[in-house]
Amino acid sequence: MNSSIRAAVIGIGNMGSAHARFIHSGVIEGMHLTAVCDLLPERLAWAERELPGARRFSDVHSLIASGEVDAVIIAVPHPMHSLIAMEAMRAGLHVLCEKPLDIRLSLAKKAVQVGRETGKTFAVMLNQRTNPIFQRARTLIREGRLGEIKRSVWIITNWYRTQHYYDSGDWRATWRGEGGGVLLNQAPHNLDLWQWICGMPTEVTARCDTAVYHHVEVEDDATLLTRYANGATGCFITSTGEYPGTNRLEISGTRGKLVLEDGRLKSWLLKEDEKVVRFSSTQSSPEIPLDYAEWAPEEAPAAHAGILRNFANAILHGEPLLSPAQDGLNELTRSNAAYLSAWQGSTPVRLPMDESAFDRLLDDRQAASAGVRDARRAENEISGQYSDRWQVKW
Amino acid sequence: MNSSIRAAVIGIGNMGSAHARFIHSGVIEGMHLTAVCDLLPERLAWAERELPGARRFSDVHSLIASGEVDAVIIAVPHPMHSLIAMEAMRAGLHVLCEKPLDIRLSLAKKAVQVGRETGKTFAVMLNQRTNPIFQRARTLIREGRLGEIKRSVWIITNWYRTQHYYDSGDWRATWRGEGGGVLLNQAPHNLDLWQWICGMPTEVTARCDTAVYHHVEVEDDATLLTRYANGATGCFITSTGEYPGTNRLEISGTRGKLVLEDGRLKSWLLKEDEKVVRFSSTQSSPEIPLDYAEWAPEEAPAAHAGILRNFANAILHGEPLLSPAQDGLNELTRSNAAYLSAWQGSTPVRLPMDESAFDRLLDDRQAASAGVRDARRAENEISGQYSDRWQVKW
Repeated sequence: MNSSIRAAVIGIGNMGSAHARFIHSGVIEGMHLTAVCDLLPERLAWAERELPGARRFSDVHSLIASGEVDAVIIAVPHPMHSLIAMEAMRAGLHVLCEKPLDIRLSLAKKAVQVGRETGKTFAVMLNQRTNPIFQRARTLIREGRLGEIKRSVWIITNWYRTQHYYDSGDWRATWRGEGGGVLLNQAPHNLDLWQWICGMPTEVTARCDTAVYHHVEVEDDATLLTRYANGATGCFITSTGEYPGTNRLEISGTRGKLVLEDGRLKSWLLKEDEKVVRFSSTQSSPEIPLDYAEWAPEEAPAAHAGILRNFANAILHGEPLLSPAQDGLNELTRSNAAYLSAWQGSTPVRLPMDESAFDRLLDDRQAASAGVRDARRAENEISGQYSDRWQVKW
Repeated sequence: MNSSIRAAVIGIGNMGSAHARFIHSGVIEGMHLTAVCDLLPERLAWAERELPGARRFSDVHSLIASGEVDAVIIAVPHPMHSLIAMEAMRAGLHVLCEKPLDIRLSLAKKAVQVGRETGKTFAVMLNQRTNPIFQRARTLIREGRLGEIKRSVWIITNWYRTQHYYDSGDWRATWRGEGGGVLLNQAPHNLDLWQWICGMPTEVTARCDTAVYHHVEVEDDATLLTRYANGATGCFITSTGEYPGTNRLEISGTRGKLVLEDGRLKSWLLKEDEKVVRFSSTQSSPEIPLDYAEWAPEEAPAAHAGILRNFANAILHGEPLLSPAQDGLNELTRSNAAYLSAWQGSTPVRLPMDESAFDRLLDDRQAASAGVRDARRAENEISGQYSDRWQVKW
């Protein structure tokens, strides 16, 4: 290993162009951009202008075999994530993969296994984990301050997207090209944070509604109901068609309630355990003493830069990964389970789920998919900048 | 008709004792209390002390046939509501019935039909309709200010109750004695307001969880997912086991969003129709100009007193009913459909629903029910006062 990681970005569309320019600008200590890879000549032309010094590849296998990179950042359409990650790790490269880890849990699991076998650093871009509000909620719950969780409800409907967005990449919003809709593209951040904070459910029931708001093949509106081992329940509501949307996570437990909204963490922490009051009170509907507090972080979250720095530090200095690929499986489990539930008439899917049943039903959808949509190409939208729309919005 | 309505309260437990004392105090113009009826001697003893001048009946048929009353307020356990209402209207009496109108939609419909045939004034105690916040939300939507509704989500989990509450009446929280749990006892207010503001769905899917928090026969936690004719969806989450609970109704439409919480109506009203932006914008995730406003009423809602006055004015002066019994059917349709869905493995129930299927499955539950629970009787809780726990809490 050189003292500075030689990094390449694979896929320099909307997201990858931002990663590439960011690394190229030299702000990630211990990492510099040596190459990019894309199928589209106009993107490589953009890279020639904007990323001087970075070698340009149009073939991913050549890039991986080139010997010129130590690590790759994968930002291609979702269905290729795990395949490229496996090839890269087997060639000795470290991998930071855009979310989701794949569209199929079955394949993502294989990739994680390859990560284990090769010992390479394998992370997933769950950049919203860098937000201090989510981190603090997680800490409070892990410290038992909320007691035993009873319910969590996340209304995350501020992923508003226009038809122009769906037309901006011809792979978008098709079963073959993208592999899913809002649950696969936008909501993975929230599905991840939800389990990171509240734990994994034992059962998922979902309603996934197709093309409610847009001309797309996939769901742009979804509701998940979950169940947990302790009997707690959860509800997750998302769409890309509401404006202004809402981002509000509420978690209630035997020791109180947390609400994350408007960029603040609001907490109601009971001075007595509600469960004790429930069975000892001689009132029907008592007031239970509590402490209310609001907290907002002073600093902006480190976002994508934070994950890139953590990835570099993990490779160079063994820093623990904030978003290890392993964790990407939990998020993907829930979106795969949600699709399976919806495709089976919104019946409950027990976890661990039957991945082969999911794969077969996805195969059917992909076989019937237009694959590449008959849409105006707007790839000139490449900005090489992180967009506000990828950050936590309240 | 006398110039002042001779009113009787049937059932003077927690709720009925409050109605009786309130009418007895003379604050409902045009209505005075001439009688009460209850099976329990200790309650009649209470009435003798607290309600001088009101005749006391232990038999409801004698009261109805007495010729001494023009109108009855029914506050007995839910499974008897419609039967008593029908008997009273057929005897020529006006009826104000506590919610829900019955536990069975099939029976409530018959009662509404009797109301129609007899021409008597027939209202249901949906006292939360008097709250100006709900009234204003309804007006905004009816005026089209929100455009076409896309989604509504009501988290109404601040119906917190202790075990003591369930033990306070031995009929409570049994299938035979009460006929249901939180959906039948507490949430009817919200189920009613939800349809009053957002309209009736075409389909209900529900999860009703039994005895999650309390020693009861029925559900104390429920989640409903609904679908509407225009493709909109809804979600309704309630329990009696969370503290501090939440009361937050969010409604999103093509022209913006309303949130009712913390005693305020918050509105985001778009200056352009989102649907037009969705298909004409050349941005992926544009900002749409909007007006934000918060509104809180200056006066406290009229609550139960408002419904009692409206009932009296309807009888005496033909004032339109704020909560006609007919409207109680819509609320009951949703709770009956929710139970049916839950009992059929949380499968969707189309509306209008199969009432006989519901009745058969409820019969099964009632046959297996303890009926009267083996609980300490705490009927001395009769306060003769309206409790804060019956009002809108935020």
